[in-house]
Amino acid sequence: MSKLSNVRVAAIQMSCSRDVNENIKKAERLVREAAAKGAQIILLPELFERQYFCQERQYEYYEFAKSVEENDAVRALLPVSEELGVVIPVSIYERAGTVLYNTVVMLDHGKNLGIYRKTHIPDDHFYQEKFYFTPGNTGFKVFDTEFGKVGIGICWDQWFPETARSLALMGADVILYPTAIGSEPILSVDSSGHWQRTMQGHSAANITPVAAANRYGLEEVKPCNENGGQESALCFYGSSFMTNETGEIIKAAGRDSEEILISDYDFEALRNIRLEWGVFRDRRPEMYGCLTK
Amino acid sequence: MSKLSNVRVAAIQMSCSRDVNENIKKAERLVREAAAKGAQIILLPELFERQYFCQERQYEYYEFAKSVEENDAVRALLPVSEELGVVIPVSIYERAGTVLYNTVVMLDHGKNLGIYRKTHIPDDHFYQEKFYFTPGNTGFKVFDTEFGKVGIGICWDQWFPETARSLALMGADVILYPTAIGSEPILSVDSSGHWQRTMQGHSAANITPVAAANRYGLEEVKPCNENGGQESALCFYGSSFMTNETGEIIKAAGRDSEEILISDYDFEALRNIRLEWGVFRDRRPEMYGCLTK
Repeated sequence: MSKLSNVRVAAIQMSCSRDVNENIKKAERLVREAAAKGAQIILLPELFERQYFCQERQYEYYEFAKSVEENDAVRALLPVSEELGVVIPVSIYERAGTVLYNTVVMLDHGKNLGIYRKTHIPDDHFYQEKFYFTPGNTGFKVFDTEFGKVGIGICWDQWFPETARSLALMGADVILYPTAIGSEPILSVDSSGHWQRTMQGHSAANITPVAAANRYGLEEVKPCNENGGQESALCFYGSSFMTNETGEIIKAAGRDSEEILISDYDFEALRNIRLEWGVFRDRRPEMYGCLTK
Repeated sequence: MSKLSNVRVAAIQMSCSRDVNENIKKAERLVREAAAKGAQIILLPELFERQYFCQERQYEYYEFAKSVEENDAVRALLPVSEELGVVIPVSIYERAGTVLYNTVVMLDHGKNLGIYRKTHIPDDHFYQEKFYFTPGNTGFKVFDTEFGKVGIGICWDQWFPETARSLALMGADVILYPTAIGSEPILSVDSSGHWQRTMQGHSAANITPVAAANRYGLEEVKPCNENGGQESALCFYGSSFMTNETGEIIKAAGRDSEEILISDYDFEALRNIRLEWGVFRDRRPEMYGCLTK
């Protein structure tokens, strides 16, 4: 198999309990299932080690952050990536000295290829991420894996055309988004369609497949002083999906089920399509000044 | 009615014959119909004065280009915009001294608010636009009309996330794309879904409604030396559409029919939604350097 052709990519949708070891074991089981189906690049959801703790502001949760080397999911999945001969981007809460980040560690055949720290950090009543994560300082990252060039955005990054465009310009063969997003019961808006269309647009405009792996399930926290006594619950809506290079959804998960989505891509053919379409040829960077102001 | 609320926007889909006057009369008739239905901002397709002459390379077609003041469609529609009290972006082939552009002239209540020159120019066997148009030098433009801030992209511009993002950052309440796109019979690819999803993505990511007005109908040219003896025909596929601020298509035209699409938008409410969603707050321009290189 050529390095850049006929690559099988999987996106895993799972729920997360309050038990870290249980979540890591579940992730490992699903990675093994995906690999057994031939998947070579296997995407897990964002921060799958835990329930989504950013629903509340608790100083003690800062202790969840560990260095890349000490992170439990990385420790568990690094040897798995070697044993199975696969690429696994692992989303973690990273401690880097006195600064904490929302980070993906790119595991490839038992090696750590490097990290990407989430560039865009959301903040509202239900996603209080600015309390937990410093905006990333790595810049956008495309990892040159054994199976092709993998671009990574983390959750909120997926709303930003700048992320996807930068990754495409850096040569990404595929763009992967580990995600934790939900809405009801308290939020009245179901953003799932908006969420999908945004990434479909990134895919279509950059002529690059994208995959988003979300968690599913209801996660509730009790009102507490740290959270201003606010009631908080999120029903993560699953709806993980994968597109082809025109932004069409070719694999889609339900809203409330454990699933492994799998798609095959010919990365070399897609590179040619990107050239032939001409949008990268016809860019006018000298006209884009307002994007960086 | 407040300046920025409850604005009615129309997108007109029409076919174009070989007769300039006939096309301008048709455009005027459709503009009047749209205004009679309450439309205030009325979008016509790209270069509706003629069949799509860029299918072939003919030096004599350079004569089609006229100054803004001398352009026939502008002359016809400027008084119409005053009489009806509407905004009409008019797509023309512009002569500016010795340089020719693909330009939109923004007419508003009988005034010319200014021009936008197409930034991104395509070029392939069926869209030989680099032969006819110098890439625009105006930069992206948002026009402060009587009914709200109107951002304009012209056809190929619609494939570029940089266009839509720039217009959104410049305060566009709505983004309008006059268009001329087709595919079959000779091209085997139907790009209409890809085309729609790209703009739906711009809409979704920028939380801004978009409208695309395309022509429809088969336009054939005979093989000629100037065109390398190439057979050329394009069936313009219509499929004009309008989105809401989440990128959802709320009005859609067929592939082969004259249509006036109409949608109402509350521009002031949409401004608040853009603020509340937080994506503009959370941008990191200092991380977007590769977009302007």
